[in-house]
Amino acid sequence: MSVIKYWGKRDEKLILAMNESISVTFDPTHLCTTTTVAVSPVFDRDRMWLNGKEMSLSGRRYQNCLREIRARANDVEDETKGIKIAKNDWEKLHVHISSNNNFPTAAGLASSASGFACLVFALAKLMNVQEDNGKLSAIARQGSGSACRSLHGGFVKWVMGKEEDGSDSIAVQLVDEKYWDDLVIIIAVVSSQQKETSSSSGMLQTVETSTLMEYRAKEVVPKRVIEMEEAIKNRDFSTFARLTCAENNQFHAICLDTSPPIFYMNDTSHRIISCVEKWNRSVGTPQAAYTCDAGPNVVLMARDREAATLLLRRLLFHFPPNSTDIDSYVVGDKLILKDAGVQNINDVESLPPPPEIEDDVLNYKYKDEIRYFICTRPGKGAVLLTDESQALLDPETGLPK
Amino acid sequence: MSVIKYWGKRDEKLILAMNESISVTFDPTHLCTTTTVAVSPVFDRDRMWLNGKEMSLSGRRYQNCLREIRARANDVEDETKGIKIAKNDWEKLHVHISSNNNFPTAAGLASSASGFACLVFALAKLMNVQEDNGKLSAIARQGSGSACRSLHGGFVKWVMGKEEDGSDSIAVQLVDEKYWDDLVIIIAVVSSQQKETSSSSGMLQTVETSTLMEYRAKEVVPKRVIEMEEAIKNRDFSTFARLTCAENNQFHAICLDTSPPIFYMNDTSHRIISCVEKWNRSVGTPQAAYTCDAGPNVVLMARDREAATLLLRRLLFHFPPNSTDIDSYVVGDKLILKDAGVQNINDVESLPPPPEIEDDVLNYKYKDEIRYFICTRPGKGAVLLTDESQALLDPETGLPK
Repeated sequence: MSVIKYWGKRDEKLILAMNESISVTFDPTHLCTTTTVAVSPVFDRDRMWLNGKEMSLSGRRYQNCLREIRARANDVEDETKGIKIAKNDWEKLHVHISSNNNFPTAAGLASSASGFACLVFALAKLMNVQEDNGKLSAIARQGSGSACRSLHGGFVKWVMGKEEDGSDSIAVQLVDEKYWDDLVIIIAVVSSQQKETSSSSGMLQTVETSTLMEYRAKEVVPKRVIEMEEAIKNRDFSTFARLTCAENNQFHAICLDTSPPIFYMNDTSHRIISCVEKWNRSVGTPQAAYTCDAGPNVVLMARDREAATLLLRRLLFHFPPNSTDIDSYVVGDKLILKDAGVQNINDVESLPPPPEIEDDVLNYKYKDEIRYFICTRPGKGAVLLTDESQALLDPETGLPK
Repeated sequence: MSVIKYWGKRDEKLILAMNESISVTFDPTHLCTTTTVAVSPVFDRDRMWLNGKEMSLSGRRYQNCLREIRARANDVEDETKGIKIAKNDWEKLHVHISSNNNFPTAAGLASSASGFACLVFALAKLMNVQEDNGKLSAIARQGSGSACRSLHGGFVKWVMGKEEDGSDSIAVQLVDEKYWDDLVIIIAVVSSQQKETSSSSGMLQTVETSTLMEYRAKEVVPKRVIEMEEAIKNRDFSTFARLTCAENNQFHAICLDTSPPIFYMNDTSHRIISCVEKWNRSVGTPQAAYTCDAGPNVVLMARDREAATLLLRRLLFHFPPNSTDIDSYVVGDKLILKDAGVQNINDVESLPPPPEIEDDVLNYKYKDEIRYFICTRPGKGAVLLTDESQALLDPETGLPK
């Protein structure tokens, strides 16, 4: 999830951004894409399944990734398995790809970023591509811009680069996932997911119609990137939170300044943000930061574990679950729920109103607005899974299991 | 209602704006403030009632208006009524003021603009102030910035001015209310009116925290003001609609780019805007423009009467009334409802979905989201009412009737 937002391309074809951006990678224990790739001389074409459903690979974005990876393929030899593929064979061989997300797809939780990063990484491993994650990120970028950041763990920056061909517009890791291990992430998955503008068409409209976009990209973001890097390196949560929130709000402001206007946040997102703002201001120093991408879901980052439990108590107070099943309402790192002192629905119902709310508390309960919460933390980047029982393709048929 | 937005002061005390703005005055038949002022030697202090409820006049904004008007008072003599007040007496005499709005107060429908314009105009008449509406507008401005525009009818521009004391930061009429009589206005009064940031504190926060505000005020708005004036003078609805919508969206974008972010529009405002955008794009030329001020209510302006009936049919299709009482659901100029072929709740229920909606129409009905619609048109500015039976103060007691 980005904390300095990528919105607007300077090159549509190569997918080069108008400004640098910074993101944090979620712990794959709680949110990840798993991709299995297979090759066989009997495959007659490249095929792909997403969450079990076959989808077309004919789009430019997929073709870019397949072409660039094939161009870097090397000899593969595994004597124990009796496999031998020469470098030049890859051009003629077809692949099968199966990819699953363990979180909602196309809901503004960066599923396409995660997906393309995983796809490029998996294909690179299959074809014995020797390039490092930085070089691979430039390929993933041509699938989905923000995918370049998702190969790395921890905090990642997508640098602008200077080359015309985009070869140096790559992602670099700022710090790894263990560097700032105080941070706790809570994702509010919002119930109503209306049909939304896709981010690639949305950002094109913004570049073409917003009179604020260029000023933001040239004058505002570069300063924020420098400040944000400093804040991350110093684990300075107050600055981090201020910048993250300001960036979120400006990104959605720029979407609104588009013709036709793009509304990604809805009333529920607004309520969560107002709750966090009110709390932060009442404490005096930021306890949590918020950010949304191209959808209403809100990613909250808490200063530390204690702040996370206080945040979760506030969220559950305002957005109690609809059923008694608290276990499927707060998923991921369950320890935060335990630390918050919430074991069942009775505990939720007896949560006291947060002290910063002086108004009539009856106005501040919203059932049915949140689908569920995911508790997580910064995590590692793409990894190779070697346990064959986890493969998504059947080794006999080459089709999804 | 403004079509080029005033947001941000360059001088908090004198209420001088960071950019010029343009508004259209609503027809007072449908939306107006009525103010009665009275003077008597028995009044021991200045007092005011708003919608029948006494309120304090101690605020700086009221004091500014009272002081500036008193400083310009003249001799008043009415032999038939036996009244004689010398110029210098006004400093010692106290006034009673009673003011009513025939539309929702403090709901983003410019009730404070209308109120201060009416107050200054009424006091000026009482005290025989000779200054024209332009000069009076500089006084009304010191009550509420946008009030300066509401003294005039038709389309009105608030010019920047150059003087340090703000004396030339006044409102001028661009065209009167009859000049562009094709225009039809439909106001959607949105049901849920959450507690909102007042516009004066909101714009101060924006100036202090938004990194886009200054660029907007200096680079974007001046060009739009020139284009908008041209569009109004040429009755060029397409340009007018494009600029009005872009201004609305940028104003709310700037509010969002504030820390803490200000949300004036809600999901209902967004739905109305999306409906208009979809319709405009399907026709190819704009049929309606939309704009909101510091609240979720949406002011829609239709190209002509025919477009207005088509718009109203769309609005009623998406937002049917909750009760069978259509007469209190669409108020103001009832003829538009008649032209739209809607006489009763059955007519609303049998409205066909607009052709531009290809999606599942069941998703697009929202009951309870709109309180009512007001149909109106551009109207005249402040006028003196001479019918004493309409007075809001009892001539015997000097108290509200």
